[in-house]
Amino acid sequence: MKAEAVRRRALVTGATGFVGRHAVQQLLAQGWEVVGVSRRPQIAAAGLSWARLDPLQQPQGWLPLLAEVRPSHVLHSAWDTTRGSYWTSFDNVRWLGASAALLEAARAAGVQRVVGVGTGAEYEDGHEWSDEFSTPLRPVSPYGQAKAACSLLFASAETAFPQGTAWGRVFFPYGPGDHPEKLLPYLARQLKAGQTAQLSSGEQVRDLLHVRDIGAALAALLDSPVRGAVNVASGEGVVLRQVAEQLADIVGRRELLQFGARNALATEGLRWVASVERLRNELGWRPAVSLQAGLREMAADA
Amino acid sequence: MKAEAVRRRALVTGATGFVGRHAVQQLLAQGWEVVGVSRRPQIAAAGLSWARLDPLQQPQGWLPLLAEVRPSHVLHSAWDTTRGSYWTSFDNVRWLGASAALLEAARAAGVQRVVGVGTGAEYEDGHEWSDEFSTPLRPVSPYGQAKAACSLLFASAETAFPQGTAWGRVFFPYGPGDHPEKLLPYLARQLKAGQTAQLSSGEQVRDLLHVRDIGAALAALLDSPVRGAVNVASGEGVVLRQVAEQLADIVGRRELLQFGARNALATEGLRWVASVERLRNELGWRPAVSLQAGLREMAADA
Repeated sequence: MKAEAVRRRALVTGATGFVGRHAVQQLLAQGWEVVGVSRRPQIAAAGLSWARLDPLQQPQGWLPLLAEVRPSHVLHSAWDTTRGSYWTSFDNVRWLGASAALLEAARAAGVQRVVGVGTGAEYEDGHEWSDEFSTPLRPVSPYGQAKAACSLLFASAETAFPQGTAWGRVFFPYGPGDHPEKLLPYLARQLKAGQTAQLSSGEQVRDLLHVRDIGAALAALLDSPVRGAVNVASGEGVVLRQVAEQLADIVGRRELLQFGARNALATEGLRWVASVERLRNELGWRPAVSLQAGLREMAADA
Repeated sequence: MKAEAVRRRALVTGATGFVGRHAVQQLLAQGWEVVGVSRRPQIAAAGLSWARLDPLQQPQGWLPLLAEVRPSHVLHSAWDTTRGSYWTSFDNVRWLGASAALLEAARAAGVQRVVGVGTGAEYEDGHEWSDEFSTPLRPVSPYGQAKAACSLLFASAETAFPQGTAWGRVFFPYGPGDHPEKLLPYLARQLKAGQTAQLSSGEQVRDLLHVRDIGAALAALLDSPVRGAVNVASGEGVVLRQVAEQLADIVGRRELLQFGARNALATEGLRWVASVERLRNELGWRPAVSLQAGLREMAADA
């Protein structure tokens, strides 16, 4: 086996997830050999094979898995994302344990570099921009706390890998494969069906990025020498009311939007926008999908 | 077995460690039943029994151990403290994994409350006072990063226990059982032997607290309803040069102090002092051992 081939074998956890599957597609497109990890059997494809593991059931399963796959890189995007419960679930604690076990197995298997997937919810709320260097980690949910803990765990393990570790903090991905109850799939579905869409006030400011771009940014981060936390986001705050109107205009049904018909979730801050200096300047990465193009795609797919 | 007896059974990890053994003594003095965890066989005493486990070797060992001991409370003070390597060791990552497994086993065993032991090194350097609410977590060492990760892990698990979780951030303990190469034992030994003591400039400001007081504060935290991070410290900054002079004056050998004869460790910030508002006001706890009394004890024991 050639050294070059070994250098570019990525093990991807959570490879069937919303973000993970797009990262896999981007890695394959860039010539990586990818081994996805899944709890269920999956179908192999060119460049893509699968390993089966449920690390919450078999925390010791990483060691033989990594020893057999011998990846050069690991992209760790697996986590509990069960809609309605992941924000407070005890599985957050268990995933942190599974992540520590993954790092230990990766080190034992001679992995060169490990990148994990975090969240903007690790940061303290109420900042104009969430910045990797200056914004405090002060998460308030069990999910945000466990993800922030994992970012510090990855930092603690940085010197254990020849090419270090990094941690991509994803803000608000949207796009194909998203959960149907999330805002944009819900909106697109209602509008296309000619039914009213019940929304909160819509004043929230968010940092939306198409999930293909999220996947591409994570692939770029895996393939880079950049260490530590890197926000994976657009760097632009958009008012959700305006996003809803933009999507409604694409469908031509703005009159179906009912703002104020429901309360915002208690977990929502008013503004969550990322500073993307590191992503732009250190990784040299720019998004490819404009919000308008992404919303057109949401409308077409609904 | 009476309900009252069950309510006060503490499992203490790291029970033979510098801080852990003093916490055990304080708990026993306050009528707790204590089960210490140790890698090696230990001798039982009144109220104190032992369970054997090396959780880095047997990460799945917590589950049967907790199921058998059925403690009402867990005090988790075990960690890698190997002098010279713990600051950067990969065992920090492994201890975080072991801590997640401990929380999971404690939850499964119906434990009421879990308290962990952290460090002032979790905080961002350069603050006049390190405060649990306002000082950012921004650790720079693998040790501080893993401990800060563990504090967030405990926060994430808070609602999984009827009486919650808490995290005691210990600053600079000193006293009997300390490592002989640490500052005060070294100083006391040299001065008593009539040999010169080689010191750095001594300008560092530290928050020293006698280890019996640390143990008492941790016992108080375990027995309280207080949740989240609580600094375990004196709240008073002392200049190390003055502490050294105070100890030398007790021995009557101030001329043996050689300041500037060695460099400060790279891991040392200039000032590390805790805010102890939570410890004083929410726990109602006050130290019992004055610095002068503690230094006299160091001198007598050397």
